[in-house]
Amino acid sequence: MQKEFIEIKDLYRKKEEYVGKTVNVAGWIRLSRASKNFGFIELNDGSFFKNMQIVIAEDKLENFKEISKLPISSSILVEGELVSTEGAKQPVEIHATKVVVEGESDSSYPLQKKRHTLEYLRTIAHLRPRSNTFSAVFRVRSLAAYAIHKFFQDRNFVYAHSPIITGSDCEGAGEMFRITTMDLNNIPKNEEGNIDYSKDFFGKEANLTVSGQLNAEIMALAFRNVYTFGPTFRAENSFTQRHASEFWMIEPEICFADLEDNMELAEDMIKYVINYVMENAPEEMEFFNNFIDKGLLDRLNNVVNSEFKRLTYTDAVKILQESGHEFEYPVNWGDDLQTEHERYLTEQIFKAPVFVTDYPKDIKAFYMRMNEDGKTVRAMDLLVPGVGEIVGGSQREEREEKLLERIEEMGLNKEDYWWYLELRKFGTATHSGFGLGFERIIMYMTGMSNIRDVIPFPRTPKNAEF
Amino acid sequence: MQKEFIEIKDLYRKKEEYVGKTVNVAGWIRLSRASKNFGFIELNDGSFFKNMQIVIAEDKLENFKEISKLPISSSILVEGELVSTEGAKQPVEIHATKVVVEGESDSSYPLQKKRHTLEYLRTIAHLRPRSNTFSAVFRVRSLAAYAIHKFFQDRNFVYAHSPIITGSDCEGAGEMFRITTMDLNNIPKNEEGNIDYSKDFFGKEANLTVSGQLNAEIMALAFRNVYTFGPTFRAENSFTQRHASEFWMIEPEICFADLEDNMELAEDMIKYVINYVMENAPEEMEFFNNFIDKGLLDRLNNVVNSEFKRLTYTDAVKILQESGHEFEYPVNWGDDLQTEHERYLTEQIFKAPVFVTDYPKDIKAFYMRMNEDGKTVRAMDLLVPGVGEIVGGSQREEREEKLLERIEEMGLNKEDYWWYLELRKFGTATHSGFGLGFERIIMYMTGMSNIRDVIPFPRTPKNAEF
Repeated sequence: MQKEFIEIKDLYRKKEEYVGKTVNVAGWIRLSRASKNFGFIELNDGSFFKNMQIVIAEDKLENFKEISKLPISSSILVEGELVSTEGAKQPVEIHATKVVVEGESDSSYPLQKKRHTLEYLRTIAHLRPRSNTFSAVFRVRSLAAYAIHKFFQDRNFVYAHSPIITGSDCEGAGEMFRITTMDLNNIPKNEEGNIDYSKDFFGKEANLTVSGQLNAEIMALAFRNVYTFGPTFRAENSFTQRHASEFWMIEPEICFADLEDNMELAEDMIKYVINYVMENAPEEMEFFNNFIDKGLLDRLNNVVNSEFKRLTYTDAVKILQESGHEFEYPVNWGDDLQTEHERYLTEQIFKAPVFVTDYPKDIKAFYMRMNEDGKTVRAMDLLVPGVGEIVGGSQREEREEKLLERIEEMGLNKEDYWWYLELRKFGTATHSGFGLGFERIIMYMTGMSNIRDVIPFPRTPKNAEF
Repeated sequence: MQKEFIEIKDLYRKKEEYVGKTVNVAGWIRLSRASKNFGFIELNDGSFFKNMQIVIAEDKLENFKEISKLPISSSILVEGELVSTEGAKQPVEIHATKVVVEGESDSSYPLQKKRHTLEYLRTIAHLRPRSNTFSAVFRVRSLAAYAIHKFFQDRNFVYAHSPIITGSDCEGAGEMFRITTMDLNNIPKNEEGNIDYSKDFFGKEANLTVSGQLNAEIMALAFRNVYTFGPTFRAENSFTQRHASEFWMIEPEICFADLEDNMELAEDMIKYVINYVMENAPEEMEFFNNFIDKGLLDRLNNVVNSEFKRLTYTDAVKILQESGHEFEYPVNWGDDLQTEHERYLTEQIFKAPVFVTDYPKDIKAFYMRMNEDGKTVRAMDLLVPGVGEIVGGSQREEREEKLLERIEEMGLNKEDYWWYLELRKFGTATHSGFGLGFERIIMYMTGMSNIRDVIPFPRTPKNAEF
C-alpha cells in the first residue's frame, strides 16, 4: 500500500510532474482550521520538513464534517488534485476529493499548537520528533551521519566496527560503565573473599567502551585508512548541557600519515559534512537559522569558506597571555586550555576554526607521539567559533621503545597493552587519527545548545527513559 | 606525507594514468624472495586486496641487500617506475629505484606464509586483518554497511540512533547484560534489604539493548520511513558458530505500509547489498568463491536474480508434511520451524529465497498484528538457501485495544509500555518493519561459517579480548 502514497517531499521537489494530477498522500494533521463548509489541513507525512496544505470543502467531500473536526495528530489518507498556488506561502496544495481516517488522535494529544519548553518535550520523547524543531534536528542528524560515511567511503576508507564491550579500561579516557550478568544479590567470591570475575559472563571485568581508537589502529595498520562510527560511553555524573552518558563518535585512523595529514583530513571532513547538510536539508537549516540561532548560516558558511588556521599550543599560550584580555582562569604554559581560552582564540583572535598543536605531554594521552623537545607531543585540537573544541587527535607514537617509556612513565601496566605494543613491533608505520563527537557537530550545525536535544533518546545520570 | 603515496588500488584501477611514470607507494611486505642481486617483493598497502609486485635489483638500489632481507610485514616506502606486464599474473609492477624502511618487522611475526587455522587467527585479532581472508572479510563488511546506508538514504529514510542503554527489558527478545556503576563490593540496599537501584547511575535497573525496534516505531510514526543500524546484545551462554554476545543489527520501520511493503523492502535491500558488494569488491568475492565457499557466486547471483517466493506458515507446514522427507524434528502446526525445515523449504522445494508469513501468534512477539483468524499474526521470516532465516519482521499491531489485549494475554506489564501504547492513541497508522542481523548477511556473502570470523573483535561467552 505504501507506494500509493506519494511522499510530500516529491510533490514539492518534483512539482511539475504532479500538478493537475490526482495524487494520494498519507500523513498526520499538524494544524486544522475549518468553517462550516470549507477548511484547510496542514498535513505532514514525515518525508519532508514542510507540510502539505489540504483544502477540504463540503461540496467535494462526503465526510467533510468528520474530517474538519479531527484532532491534531490524527493520521489520514488523502486523495485529491495537486494544484499550483503561485504567490501563496506554499507552492502547491491538494484539493481533496476523498479523505479516509487512518488513526484518529485523542484530544489529550500534548503537542498542541502552543509552544512547549525543550525541557517538557524531553519528557515526551516518543512524540517530540513530530514537532518542527525535532523533526529538523533528527533529519539533520541522519543526513550528517550519512555524509560522514559517504566522505570516508568515497576516499576508500574501511569502516571498522570497534567493540562496544571491552575487557579492559586501557584507554583511560573516562569513567566506565560495568557490564555484568552476575546475580547482584549473590555475587560470587573467591577464597580470599574478593569478587570472582572469572564467574562473570566474559570471565573477567567488562566495561562499555570509551573509545575505539586502539582498535582502529589495529585496522589502520592493515587497511591504511579506516574509520569507526559507533556509540561510546561515559559514566560521569555530570549534568552539563554538553555531556551525555551515551553518544556516538567518529574516529578515523590513517597510516603513512602525519599530523599534517590528520589536520587536512579533519578540515576536509568538517567542511564536507556541513556542505552536505546545507545542500540536503535547506528547509531545516533555514528553520534553525530563523528560530533557533540567528547567525547560524553565516557562521557555517564562514567555516566552510575559511582556511582553518594552525598554530602550536606554545604560540597559543603566548597570544593569549599577550592579548590583555582578562580570563577567569589564568593562562599558563603546561595547563590545559579552558573553554574560554579556546573560544577567545577562535572567535576573537582568528575569527575562524583553529588547530592548536603540540601540547605539553603531561596533559595528553600516553599514545601521542613525543616531539624532539621531549616536552610536547604531536597532538591537535580543532577549535571552532561558538563551541570551542570539536575534534581532538594526534599523531600516534609508532616507536615501540618510546611508547613503552611513556606507558611506564604514566604508571600503566604494559601487559594490558601487549597487542598495542606488538603493532609497533611487526611493521610499525607513521599513523595518525582523531575523534569527533557526533553530537557536538550536530549541535554546531543546528544551534541546539543541549546535547539532550540532538539525541532521540538521551541517556544521562538518573535518566534512561524510552 | 600521505598524498605522496599513491594507493595501490589506483595503480590497478587507473593503470593507464600511471604506467611509465615514477610512483611512490607505502605498504607492508607480504612476501619476499630474492637471489643475490635480484628479487621480488609482494607489497600490500591496505587500500586494495591485491599486492603490488616490487622488483628490486642490486644495480638499481643502493640498499638492495638490506631490503632483500627484510622480514615479512615490514613496512617500506617505495619509489620506482610503474611498468605494464601484459600476460603476467599481475597487470603492473614497480621497478624500484628507492626503498626506505619505515618499520622493520620482527622475525617472530606469526603470520608467516604457512596456513593457519581460523581458531588460531582469532587469538591474534590484532594481526589477522593483514591476512588475505580477513582483509577480504572486513572490507566486504565495510562495503556492506555502506550499501545499507546508501540503500535507505537514497530512498529518503531517516537513520535513527536507538539507545544502547535501556531502562527496561520490554523487548523480551533475549537475555540482557546489566549495566551498573554500583560498587559491587558494597551494593546499596534499601530498608527491606533489597538492592537499591535508585542509587545506581540511572536511578533504576539498566541493561544493554536487544533491539531498537520499539524506538524505531516512535521515529517511523514521525518520519514515515526510518532505519536503525547499531550494536545489539545477547547475554546468552551459547557457543554456536552463529551467535555472538555483541552484533550489529539493521531495523527499518515503515509507515502507511503493510506486510507486503515490508517484504518488498527486505527483498530490495538484500538484492541491493549483494549487488553493491559484488560490484565494489570483485577481487574479494572471487577470493571467497575460490578459497572459502566454491558455490558462493552462483548462489548470490541466484538470489539477486530470483523473485523471492511468498507463502504462509500454514502452507509451509503442509508442504513440509507432504514432502515425505524425514526430518529430525517433526513438523506440527503451532511449532516453530527448525533450521532443517527452513533450509528444506528454501533449498529443496523452492531453490530460492522464501518469505514465510502469518505464523501462529503463540510463537511470535506481542507487537505483531493479529490476523482476522485470531490465531495467526502478520509476521514474516525470510529464508535463504545455505543459511535459513536471515530476516524476521512483521506488520505491527497498530490498534490500541488489540495491542493491550496481547500485552495482558502475555502477562506483560502495561505500565512498561505506556509510550508504546500512546503511539496507538495519538494518530496511529499501519506500519511494519523487520530486523536483519548484519553479521548474518556478511556470513552469507562471504561464505564464512563462524560469526567470530566476520567481526573484527568478537565478544562471546568468556571472551572479550582486544
